[in-house]
Amino acid sequence: MAELVGNLLVAQSGGPTAVINASVAGVIQEAGKHECIEEIYGGLNGILGILNEELIDLNEEKAKNIEGLKHTPAAALGTCRYKIDFKKKPEQAARDMARLFEVFQAHNIRYFFYAGGNDSQDTSNKIHQEAVKRGWEMRVIGVPKTIDNDLPHTDHCPGYGSVIKYNATTVAEVALDVGAMATDDGACCIVEVMGRSAGWIAAGTILARRRPDDAPHIILLPEIAFAEEAFLARVKETVSRLRYCVVVVGEGLKNTAGEEIGADKSRLDAFGHPVLSGAADRLAEIVTGKLNLKTRTVKLGYAQRAAAHCASELDVEEATACGNAAVRAAIDGKSGFMIKIVRIQSNPYKWTTGTQPLDDIANVEHFIPRDWISEDGFAPNEKFIEYARPLVCGELKMPMEDGLPKYVILDKCRLEKKLPPKT
Amino acid sequence: MAELVGNLLVAQSGGPTAVINASVAGVIQEAGKHECIEEIYGGLNGILGILNEELIDLNEEKAKNIEGLKHTPAAALGTCRYKIDFKKKPEQAARDMARLFEVFQAHNIRYFFYAGGNDSQDTSNKIHQEAVKRGWEMRVIGVPKTIDNDLPHTDHCPGYGSVIKYNATTVAEVALDVGAMATDDGACCIVEVMGRSAGWIAAGTILARRRPDDAPHIILLPEIAFAEEAFLARVKETVSRLRYCVVVVGEGLKNTAGEEIGADKSRLDAFGHPVLSGAADRLAEIVTGKLNLKTRTVKLGYAQRAAAHCASELDVEEATACGNAAVRAAIDGKSGFMIKIVRIQSNPYKWTTGTQPLDDIANVEHFIPRDWISEDGFAPNEKFIEYARPLVCGELKMPMEDGLPKYVILDKCRLEKKLPPKT
Repeated sequence: MAELVGNLLVAQSGGPTAVINASVAGVIQEAGKHECIEEIYGGLNGILGILNEELIDLNEEKAKNIEGLKHTPAAALGTCRYKIDFKKKPEQAARDMARLFEVFQAHNIRYFFYAGGNDSQDTSNKIHQEAVKRGWEMRVIGVPKTIDNDLPHTDHCPGYGSVIKYNATTVAEVALDVGAMATDDGACCIVEVMGRSAGWIAAGTILARRRPDDAPHIILLPEIAFAEEAFLARVKETVSRLRYCVVVVGEGLKNTAGEEIGADKSRLDAFGHPVLSGAADRLAEIVTGKLNLKTRTVKLGYAQRAAAHCASELDVEEATACGNAAVRAAIDGKSGFMIKIVRIQSNPYKWTTGTQPLDDIANVEHFIPRDWISEDGFAPNEKFIEYARPLVCGELKMPMEDGLPKYVILDKCRLEKKLPPKT
Repeated sequence: MAELVGNLLVAQSGGPTAVINASVAGVIQEAGKHECIEEIYGGLNGILGILNEELIDLNEEKAKNIEGLKHTPAAALGTCRYKIDFKKKPEQAARDMARLFEVFQAHNIRYFFYAGGNDSQDTSNKIHQEAVKRGWEMRVIGVPKTIDNDLPHTDHCPGYGSVIKYNATTVAEVALDVGAMATDDGACCIVEVMGRSAGWIAAGTILARRRPDDAPHIILLPEIAFAEEAFLARVKETVSRLRYCVVVVGEGLKNTAGEEIGADKSRLDAFGHPVLSGAADRLAEIVTGKLNLKTRTVKLGYAQRAAAHCASELDVEEATACGNAAVRAAIDGKSGFMIKIVRIQSNPYKWTTGTQPLDDIANVEHFIPRDWISEDGFAPNEKFIEYARPLVCGELKMPMEDGLPKYVILDKCRLEKKLPPKT
């Protein structure tokens, strides 16, 4: 393998997580060890910023701030949901791709790392293929990132362990509250969590259940069609036994007709997915209306994916390692791959990283296997618990200032633009 | 002062907090030092359980579990919202009061401690007055508790420091997320927090703002009538400058007519009940509709008051000390008082406890002074910040098990009932 000398560009895409910045730190710190990598640049707001030649010099950042990225949530480089869509907008996509390569060539980008989820891995794959087509020698490696945990081939995704650690902690705490308030009239609380059409995040809250009667009492997974009568019967039975019932619902829960029960179909995001927001409120209407039961909702929204203060230490380690591994794979001559986490064993948990062709990843969604879910469909089973339990382990030592976490803001020293503005 | 020998009863009332159990631990641990206190009982679900003679023997609990209450959120004894209402239901109130004293006398209760907010302090006061009237020598001390921070005379309430620590942390994290996602199209996120008609909780999120452009960019306090046009202008200006805007709203925000903006009586849900959309959802409608700006909401609900994993260490210390002080005040012969926190100085923060007659407390709500709020009404000012900053300091060392906090569940060894059931 001939050594490829040139500059590195790393960027972030899609919804942030508590640990996606750790992956960027991992890329930067590993890249610093390899002489063939000359400059280390960051692209602002993913490919959207790269199209506008908005690049920063990451070697200008303080080393302690790069290290501090490991406990800083969200996307320190900024992110985007921009899609290069050859099917729906072929001309725009062709123009975008040409522009991206103008930017890559103007800045001699020979190593490109893109941290993101399904759509972003698709983008990475297209860029890899385009580089081959154009004969521009550049190594493209995808870094996995999504709280949704729905990327295939990787055991799990960086970001997932932290979101379920926070959500399970929250469910345990909310359950103590609701249980303490419950009188003979009963009470119900519905916690809505993210995850789109995959139930991994909702399922992860099962870790809060240490004893059989602990919350969550019901977990509604998007993988299982919502059965209203069976659900109401289960709520009723739980409340009559315990005086309260805590329900966790994945935002993408569907009815038997396959429609999302909380979807507002009038609103679509940039990728054409429906905006999901109302599953808990819809369920609360049903419970209040049919069972005449006092019902409250909790909608953690962005708070769950940004909750670095409750991040999993293992998740941070793995996210960092994925960044490291991406650079090493590229140095080894690979392009068109995504880094994946490989589980060696569950108890005690041991893992390593590997690579998977982006062709196998892009636009494939990975759901919870049916045999990891209880027969009645209201909770994941022991197989899931064995899988998920190690992922929440360890706590970060968060630097604090005046009682609040001290997060890093990058200086973002801009590179001089070499190209005319994008048309 | 003649020594009063007999049993102690402690109970909890109203909405739970992250530290109300610390106050109970403080009562129990202090009581254990005084020989005049013979048995230490807990009342389940506040006076509601006491009316039903549902008492437990707290001396049967493991000492490590009593200590563990200091990091366990919610109300370990259970709580209630039951009101003895002599105005609206005089006959029921008289029957309840008579029954309470049957229970007190049957179990020789000579020390009664009730941890709660405004309504609960009113209940304590009525019980104190009734004891005097009946000639039943019993010392009644209220222990302050409310995340809302709206009790008068105490510098602040146990529970408040923890809720604002968690909410400010969350706002800082959410802001990084929204800021990272923001493109030139702009983005708005609205975080709804508790506090009823007082803005203390909403105001406390100002601690997340370390630099002038940090979130929260706008704080809508229930103390200030909602001015839609000025609000929209401020959102627009913020987004045009920063590309995003994070708004914190207190759930009890009112319009100029004094109506809560989250209670939209014109809309009915599927069951014909008025939609209580909540302040954040209502504001999101306004922002989306009037500014055509992508807007998301976060509704932390019960999660914020139960978030012991992010509790303020100072808050736990103060809550414990209030429990200790309540017992010492009663031993000293006091009855009909609430323990209060007295600030000696702000920087460095020094405090002690004191007592205040319950007559001064009951049913009085304490709001943010107007001169602690900026002239434009969109944020608290430096006076508030000086007040609030010390309250979030210090982190608990939370015992963990499998990556999640290990909270205490009491054994709740029931006392044998001595009375016929309540009629």
